[in-house]
Amino acid sequence: MKKVLTLGELMLRLTPMHYNRFVQSHRFRAVYGGGEANVAISMAKFGYDTYFISKIVDNEIGDAAINQLREFNVNTDYIIRGGERMGLYYSEIGSSQRAPKVIYDRKNSSIARAKVEEFDFKKIFKDASLFFVSGILPALSKNCYDITLEAMKEAKRQKVMVAFDLNWRSSVIKLEDAVKIYNDFSPYIDILIGILPQLHDVKEGELTRDSVEKIFREIYNYYGFKYIVSTLRQSLSASDNTLSAAIFDGKNFYESKKLKVRIVDRVGGGDAFAAGLLSAILDGKSQEEAIDFAVAASSLKHTIKGDFNLVSKEKVQRIVNGNVSGRIDW
Amino acid sequence: MKKVLTLGELMLRLTPMHYNRFVQSHRFRAVYGGGEANVAISMAKFGYDTYFISKIVDNEIGDAAINQLREFNVNTDYIIRGGERMGLYYSEIGSSQRAPKVIYDRKNSSIARAKVEEFDFKKIFKDASLFFVSGILPALSKNCYDITLEAMKEAKRQKVMVAFDLNWRSSVIKLEDAVKIYNDFSPYIDILIGILPQLHDVKEGELTRDSVEKIFREIYNYYGFKYIVSTLRQSLSASDNTLSAAIFDGKNFYESKKLKVRIVDRVGGGDAFAAGLLSAILDGKSQEEAIDFAVAASSLKHTIKGDFNLVSKEKVQRIVNGNVSGRIDW
Amino acid sequence: MKKVLTLGELMLRLTPMHYNRFVQSHRFRAVYGGGEANVAISMAKFGYDTYFISKIVDNEIGDAAINQLREFNVNTDYIIRGGERMGLYYSEIGSSQRAPKVIYDRKNSSIARAKVEEFDFKKIFKDASLFFVSGILPALSKNCYDITLEAMKEAKRQKVMVAFDLNWRSSVIKLEDAVKIYNDFSPYIDILIGILPQLHDVKEGELTRDSVEKIFREIYNYYGFKYIVSTLRQSLSASDNTLSAAIFDGKNFYESKKLKVRIVDRVGGGDAFAAGLLSAILDGKSQEEAIDFAVAASSLKHTIKGDFNLVSKEKVQRIVNGNVSGRIDW
Amino acid sequence: MKKVLTLGELMLRLTPMHYNRFVQSHRFRAVYGGGEANVAISMAKFGYDTYFISKIVDNEIGDAAINQLREFNVNTDYIIRGGERMGLYYSEIGSSQRAPKVIYDRKNSSIARAKVEEFDFKKIFKDASLFFVSGILPALSKNCYDITLEAMKEAKRQKVMVAFDLNWRSSVIKLEDAVKIYNDFSPYIDILIGILPQLHDVKEGELTRDSVEKIFREIYNYYGFKYIVSTLRQSLSASDNTLSAAIFDGKNFYESKKLKVRIVDRVGGGDAFAAGLLSAILDGKSQEEAIDFAVAASSLKHTIKGDFNLVSKEKVQRIVNGNVSGRIDW
Amino acid sequence: MKKVLTLGELMLRLTPMHYNRFVQSHRFRAVYGGGEANVAISMAKFGYDTYFISKIVDNEIGDAAINQLREFNVNTDYIIRGGERMGLYYSEIGSSQRAPKVIYDRKNSSIARAKVEEFDFKKIFKDASLFFVSGILPALSKNCYDITLEAMKEAKRQKVMVAFDLNWRSSVIKLEDAVKIYNDFSPYIDILIGILPQLHDVKEGELTRDSVEKIFREIYNYYGFKYIVSTLRQSLSASDNTLSAAIFDGKNFYESKKLKVRIVDRVGGGDAFAAGLLSAILDGKSQEEAIDFAVAASSLKHTIKGDFNLVSKEKVQRIVNGNVSGRIDW
Amino acid sequence: MKKVLTLGELMLRLTPMHYNRFVQSHRFRAVYGGGEANVAISMAKFGYDTYFISKIVDNEIGDAAINQLREFNVNTDYIIRGGERMGLYYSEIGSSQRAPKVIYDRKNSSIARAKVEEFDFKKIFKDASLFFVSGILPALSKNCYDITLEAMKEAKRQKVMVAFDLNWRSSVIKLEDAVKIYNDFSPYIDILIGILPQLHDVKEGELTRDSVEKIFREIYNYYGFKYIVSTLRQSLSASDNTLSAAIFDGKNFYESKKLKVRIVDRVGGGDAFAAGLLSAILDGKSQEEAIDFAVAASSLKHTIKGDFNLVSKEKVQRIVNGNVSGRIDW
Repeated sequence: MKKVLTLGELMLRLTPMHYNRFVQSHRFRAVYGGGEANVAISMAKFGYDTYFISKIVDNEIGDAAINQLREFNVNTDYIIRGGERMGLYYSEIGSSQRAPKVIYDRKNSSIARAKVEEFDFKKIFKDASLFFVSGILPALSKNCYDITLEAMKEAKRQKVMVAFDLNWRSSVIKLEDAVKIYNDFSPYIDILIGILPQLHDVKEGELTRDSVEKIFREIYNYYGFKYIVSTLRQSLSASDNTLSAAIFDGKNFYESKKLKVRIVDRVGGGDAFAAGLLSAILDGKSQEEAIDFAVAASSLKHTIKGDFNLVSKEKVQRIVNGNVSGRIDW
Repeated sequence: MKKVLTLGELMLRLTPMHYNRFVQSHRFRAVYGGGEANVAISMAKFGYDTYFISKIVDNEIGDAAINQLREFNVNTDYIIRGGERMGLYYSEIGSSQRAPKVIYDRKNSSIARAKVEEFDFKKIFKDASLFFVSGILPALSKNCYDITLEAMKEAKRQKVMVAFDLNWRSSVIKLEDAVKIYNDFSPYIDILIGILPQLHDVKEGELTRDSVEKIFREIYNYYGFKYIVSTLRQSLSASDNTLSAAIFDGKNFYESKKLKVRIVDRVGGGDAFAAGLLSAILDGKSQEEAIDFAVAASSLKHTIKGDFNLVSKEKVQRIVNGNVSGRIDW
Repeated sequence: MKKVLTLGELMLRLTPMHYNRFVQSHRFRAVYGGGEANVAISMAKFGYDTYFISKIVDNEIGDAAINQLREFNVNTDYIIRGGERMGLYYSEIGSSQRAPKVIYDRKNSSIARAKVEEFDFKKIFKDASLFFVSGILPALSKNCYDITLEAMKEAKRQKVMVAFDLNWRSSVIKLEDAVKIYNDFSPYIDILIGILPQLHDVKEGELTRDSVEKIFREIYNYYGFKYIVSTLRQSLSASDNTLSAAIFDGKNFYESKKLKVRIVDRVGGGDAFAAGLLSAILDGKSQEEAIDFAVAASSLKHTIKGDFNLVSKEKVQRIVNGNVSGRIDW
Repeated sequence: MKKVLTLGELMLRLTPMHYNRFVQSHRFRAVYGGGEANVAISMAKFGYDTYFISKIVDNEIGDAAINQLREFNVNTDYIIRGGERMGLYYSEIGSSQRAPKVIYDRKNSSIARAKVEEFDFKKIFKDASLFFVSGILPALSKNCYDITLEAMKEAKRQKVMVAFDLNWRSSVIKLEDAVKIYNDFSPYIDILIGILPQLHDVKEGELTRDSVEKIFREIYNYYGFKYIVSTLRQSLSASDNTLSAAIFDGKNFYESKKLKVRIVDRVGGGDAFAAGLLSAILDGKSQEEAIDFAVAASSLKHTIKGDFNLVSKEKVQRIVNGNVSGRIDW
Repeated sequence: MKKVLTLGELMLRLTPMHYNRFVQSHRFRAVYGGGEANVAISMAKFGYDTYFISKIVDNEIGDAAINQLREFNVNTDYIIRGGERMGLYYSEIGSSQRAPKVIYDRKNSSIARAKVEEFDFKKIFKDASLFFVSGILPALSKNCYDITLEAMKEAKRQKVMVAFDLNWRSSVIKLEDAVKIYNDFSPYIDILIGILPQLHDVKEGELTRDSVEKIFREIYNYYGFKYIVSTLRQSLSASDNTLSAAIFDGKNFYESKKLKVRIVDRVGGGDAFAAGLLSAILDGKSQEEAIDFAVAASSLKHTIKGDFNLVSKEKVQRIVNGNVSGRIDW
Repeated sequence: MKKVLTLGELMLRLTPMHYNRFVQSHRFRAVYGGGEANVAISMAKFGYDTYFISKIVDNEIGDAAINQLREFNVNTDYIIRGGERMGLYYSEIGSSQRAPKVIYDRKNSSIARAKVEEFDFKKIFKDASLFFVSGILPALSKNCYDITLEAMKEAKRQKVMVAFDLNWRSSVIKLEDAVKIYNDFSPYIDILIGILPQLHDVKEGELTRDSVEKIFREIYNYYGFKYIVSTLRQSLSASDNTLSAAIFDGKNFYESKKLKVRIVDRVGGGDAFAAGLLSAILDGKSQEEAIDFAVAASSLKHTIKGDFNLVSKEKVQRIVNGNVSGRIDW
């Protein structure tokens, strides 16, 4: 089993029951999630020997968070306990015209204030095949920037493949600041997931096959990553989306099949995509196969509550193979 | 802040959880609602100084009902306590071919038996900008008819704009009786919401732009209201509707944009429309803007559980502006 | 009131709440169901004097199962108490690309080990008009095979109409074994519900009007049933299906209208179809009316949680009559 | 199996979840209950052929109410459908010093407005062994008074034993009015359950063995019932009570053993007592045995949510036999 | 109606359902609370014109918190919106030997970082009768210390009675630091609630009537408050406590009656006591009456879920009057 | 960290919500448990390197069961996947006089039909310090008897301490059969937990200090175990128990302190006791300390829902140290 590492923040996610709005809520569904943890869960479900690296507060809320990773087979040996608080986010499910809403309350979390010296990256990266981190982590704090950078460097030293998902959120970091950070990491990145159409004079939601290919080529020419990948989500409403994606390896550009999804829970859809992609790449699939596998994995996440894509490789492959009828599996 | 008044019945609404039928239900979701109260909640959310006028039973169920109005910022100072019981209604959510079902149990409620002398309308209407009532209230009892009429008269005396939503329900009053009542009120009405296609030889569900305009003109020629407005709902199924509406001011006839909604809870959709319309008119928007704002407000209500349209003006405007993608609001 | 009999297994059904996967579930919705019990419930709701025949374990779980039948007006006087356990099944609701999942745990249930001598069929079939059983029952065990066969024979002796729904599940019995069983029963069957396209070189999901008619004629020519009927479900996804059906009486072949359904709970859809069909036939409706009634009944089941189609004849007829708008029934 | 009849009102009971107060409640547990229906359920669980006589509204809420009786094996053939509404009551669970609270909303219910001619008592009382009714029913309306009286007379004509539980509630009828009613019924009563200490200058909660015996003798000397019975509840708090009771047959006075109960749901405790008593009497138990059985039955009800005492005779007898340890029944 | 002011932090409280531990919890009950807000709710329920003063984050979680105050009739006009986050706390219900557990996550909340200049205390204190604050607020931050001090000074200037509840929590502030703060406020305090036995060489849980009186006299001799009050809780277990209290006005020392409580939710018990006390004092009750009223109020809180003591003066008085039987209030 | 092994069956446990009876239940709380798994969870919470050995069905219900062990830190590497079904049990919570009720449905489970050859005990027992198994396992089937015996023999070979808890259930095995089995295992047992008073002419529930000591000495004289231990539960009712225990090492007999518990969930109380005892012994505590630690651990389990005793050593020690006040842990 290949060893896979992800590094990031695990947050408590508080979601109103059903379609309730925050102001109607007297109970919250409590799950745990966060981009890199979500990728870790997916990879563990896909059968890799997956480790989540983080610092998590040493109280019973932190225990519950870590238990949930372990429940779904993620190794938690590299998690440091301590610091002041669990970051959290409030998340309202949308419907039709009503957009899902996320309110972050993650400042001063244990990982945001962790120090790079606390992590023994040399040991952590030993024998690893893949390292995944997203652009949110270094945007959280200077400390997290340092941690991310050092992890990437160690990955390179130990020849571990590095995947980086931009995951840009305007509520976490301004675009111009984000771009600076991304630049610092670019020498260490093998697989770039996500693009910023704004930097290429394209409006989000108006991406076409051609404009994406153009953007990919620009990025490739400048940075030369091994793979550049992006989802191409069409958001018809908060209830219905179509999913597809594109990949480029400097030579060939592929666009995936398009899948229609009725959304149960939108959050984590991008992380499920990343995990699907990385799994396919680790398994030696072709670019075309990889991008279809990633989209299929993401489509399944949209049907599952919580951040985690609790599906096996077989279920994803069934969709790649065209079995999307949803007939009862007696 | 403009002072807005609505007068009506506030009922306990008992709804099975999820999609359960009544005969499967061992728990009911308990919320409070009623046409005019729903309009009051919307108007309060939109920022007006909103008062709900009613009589509500003086026990803890009545307390809970009033608390809920106050929770959402409706002023309850004009509510009289007393009488015998809380009116209530049972409401089953539908799906696909299965229609939502409402069973009323509202006879002999405190408002139905209240007396016109109990209300100090002179004081209540002081400095008000708008008064809203629906055709259900006067249909409840002779007492309610008297109360409604006196309120309308006082509104006219104090030059308060009067909006009247027909809200005709065959289970509450026969069509011919309803028409008589409406006639009595017509001299006091500025804004008429709703039409009765049956009176114009048109089948409900077969309204076209042309037939609606024709009906509007007939009404206008006879009664001369300031605005005549009607929703034009297409009910594809209990799960999916399209919403649009039309407005006529004696000169210009406008039809709104059409919005597709996937329904979470259908009840209160018309009240949300009325509130959207009245808010736009109070804010001095044009007829066209007003009708689009009203439809957008109504579309959001369909995505929210309970009778109340718990959305701000900004969220409604976002939809009017064309942002209907439902992308996550991080 | 006509006396209707169904014979089969009643199981406990455990379903995660909402759209949760099994591995996310800390609570299960507990209902009771099973093909023939579901048909019995439908028939009782339609107003027939309906009896369910089975053997059910004599503990409080068995009590709860029987209570639920009685709650919905099924006569339980022919149920024998005893044996070792309640069969059960775990059932996960699907969504979009994610298929619903059923895990059976029904071996060694009380009915599976019941003996044919335990049932006094002579008395049971007295004055009955209709007997329904499905192909799952005889596939459960040799004992159940014997019970089914004896029941069919007694039905014939007492001139009770026999309806048989193939209900083939690969997880219960292999196709070739199933076919053998069905053959043994064929002399006693009046109404055959369901076909096995695999035996006619047609792939499931690729049935056309023509191929179905061809299959029907082949079956008719070989076995000569009074009616051969089959649903023609199009499974667009786990969330959306279209429903239609076909019927053949040796002379005329009819295809029903097609209905689109958004699925709340898929399980029991076929049983609701069977009950709709049988009710229509008992009421003397024409083939065309019967098949439309059956499809309408089935469409309603898809909107209701649990196995049971808790709807009246009137509600089904409303859909047959074209009222599918799902407007609120105030 | 002896035929047992009870006549009364079946209401919808709405109870906040957990220990919530009404003003905190966004969901209500919905069960159905009412004194005579509760007695019917108990008697059915004890194995008698039990019928509930009433009039219940003909809508889906009425269906659900009737289904619940049938679920627990009460025969509903003597229930008339029609009238205007389902009576209901709101019921808050208490704790420690906080008393449970009941708010009735039962005026104008179908039974309250039913007419005596609607019931074919001659047929209903045929072959019956026991008829139970409580003092609440005739207090509801003049119509109910007439119905109760006629039922009692028919019972006497057909030599059916009549049990009457005072069940006096100050919120339903004033004491002096109640006494008048009770007097009218006294010629027809065999078993009187309940006393009114207020009429005997004793404060409730200050009943002693001696004062109860004194009251019993006064009643006996005046009316001469076959049995006079009363519970002797000590209410330590809303969470803890002790239960005992006394019985007098004109000769011997017995006081039962005393049982301590921790209360899960207090409502229906008196009805469970009545059913326990009547069952013991029907089974030919001695006075002493009967009163102990009644108290044991009542104690179990206090541990069960809802109005119904869902326990078998065996479970009650176990407690009478002294097995009150509550050890797990593996 | 007397105007009552409380100043403090309103937090989101997340509590596992039932008796679940944090690590078992997949849902949290979400209510809002905090010492001074709890006192405000009580005072509003008791009928005073009550205002809560605070700064609360300007997002939908903050909206929900404020709505809940308004729902229960607290005036929220003096609440400033803004800052960074809602403070929150996780709270596990205990049972028997298992102690309830609170985990605070309240650092950097909007009120903790608010500035004294943001509050227009001159206007706020106009016409007020009573000001309540607890020792937790000034312990949160230097800013909160300044705000508390300025509020107290303004109270004195405007001759508003000041009540101060120590509410010391070792997890918020060290004892020696707390003592310093309390000293600074002592000149402005009229009513001191709570003592610190540790400062008087008495172990908590070993307070006797004599030791309390001794401590009260020491405090009185040093500071000279108008009233010194303290609860005397006996914690038999997490499920059962006895409650009593003592009061001293420099002359007379009184100990209240003792009440036994079975605990539904322990949190807010002290705040309910404070509100009971202050209400009694505002109403001009004697010291003895006041302390009994306060203990009765607190006893009721222990039976109610959430932080708020949702009871009326009448219900409290009933207990003071000795009606603690918890009999059903029909 | 010492390596601890337990071997047994892990079952799905289905429990009605709240205090509902089975026949009232429309939802079941779904947790997983079983004597040896419960001990494993406790030992993992106490910090040992704990492994659970079993065979569990290879479907998603089995996945969920295993996930839950891993969630709470039990190593699942020695679990074999396969076989036919998950054993399960239905469990009703009792209250006051109403006893908790368990209905087993565990026949033919994967472990019941597993074969001894499937387990590589040589590898499993390597470096282990303690092996725990209960008398239920070998009573399940001949296969389980063989597995248990072989495990015990291997334990002895590798000098691993063996603890055996009789855990006798009359519904699983007859007393005389059980005794035979226990005899076969006796040569391998170091620590015997539980006695069978029936074999010593003592009635359960009438055990005294003296009779227990006498029984212990008889057992010791016959078998010569290192420790003989037994709980001495007093079951006052299903809601209240007192807990104590006794231990004997052939020389000294000790009785523990007695603790009073109000019961939230009784199931697993004995397993928590066993785990507390074994932990104390592994930690080298004295007999007296061990028995007090075990009782304290068990008392906490009674306050927690589900089978698992989710508490740390520190929390148990706090109770041993006399801190049983249940005051809030702020």
